[in-house]
Amino acid sequence: MREIEERKSVRRYSAEAIEKTKLDAILGSARLAPSGHNKQPWHFIVVADAGKREEIAMASNQQRWMASAPVHIVCVADIRARTQNAEPMYVDEESPSFELKRVIRDTAIAMSHILLEARHQGLDTCWVSWYDQKEFRPLLGIPEDKFVVGVITLGYADEAPAPKPRKRMEEILHYERW
Amino acid sequence: MREIEERKSVRRYSAEAIEKTKLDAILGSARLAPSGHNKQPWHFIVVADAGKREEIAMASNQQRWMASAPVHIVCVADIRARTQNAEPMYVDEESPSFELKRVIRDTAIAMSHILLEARHQGLDTCWVSWYDQKEFRPLLGIPEDKFVVGVITLGYADEAPAPKPRKRMEEILHYERW
Repeated sequence: MREIEERKSVRRYSAEAIEKTKLDAILGSARLAPSGHNKQPWHFIVVADAGKREEIAMASNQQRWMASAPVHIVCVADIRARTQNAEPMYVDEESPSFELKRVIRDTAIAMSHILLEARHQGLDTCWVSWYDQKEFRPLLGIPEDKFVVGVITLGYADEAPAPKPRKRMEEILHYERW
Repeated sequence: MREIEERKSVRRYSAEAIEKTKLDAILGSARLAPSGHNKQPWHFIVVADAGKREEIAMASNQQRWMASAPVHIVCVADIRARTQNAEPMYVDEESPSFELKRVIRDTAIAMSHILLEARHQGLDTCWVSWYDQKEFRPLLGIPEDKFVVGVITLGYADEAPAPKPRKRMEEILHYERW
């Protein structure tokens, strides 16, 4: 499939704005992702404000290139979507919760749709997850019971990176058993 | 994108065999998925044996329909791909490890490629994750330091399920902040 073959992590973007119809199609693709028990345990924060994008870049281990993307999509997994429990909850990188693993999984599927739909629309992306939950969440007012699975930078590419090397199929493929 | 719009979870398959070129394209799409630090922390076990597919279905809370799919792709996340640590390790649903969350995330991306490439090839899938790690792994000889993120059933559909309802965009979308 063309989009899967063409997708690459782009870390330099042109200043060109993203058409609203394209952005809507990209966000809509996330909504159609499959999830466990169809719980759809995801939220997406579209950040276009230049100052906020700068702050996100700084919180992501000073990856200044991130701010060159005209839009950041902050992708958040929500354990509340899978539980009736109304007690206060807190999650972070070291939480043992199985529910947290499940909502991270589901949000990753939705994020993968965003990456591929963006390529389909002629746009490029990079998935960044290099930050600390505790530091990152307050930047955007994200509650402590949510887990930020990643920030997707989105825009028109201003570089053409070489494809990353991949393992050979024999290294990752097994037949009938491990 | 057509594949994202068309993808649905199919739970009844025809006996029609899967062409090798299509299966290769589907498995190849997983290999191209992005992953943190390009560690590619995933393994795929292709199970075609009828007896084994029956056992997988039984271990997945007796979901007998699973065995109707001519192929199961068992998708396994591997924390070893991200660490130099050679000590014995054990992971399961309740492990607190951040590394485990990361490899589950990455494997979910690769699995999402499989679902979409299958649709691109005219095939259908269902992602099943309803089993116990401890019970499931011995079926296929999977080591205790690996996490089975899901089983993807693959084949030609013998049903046309209605699309699942989805949350409205307003329920999952935020602008500039939470």
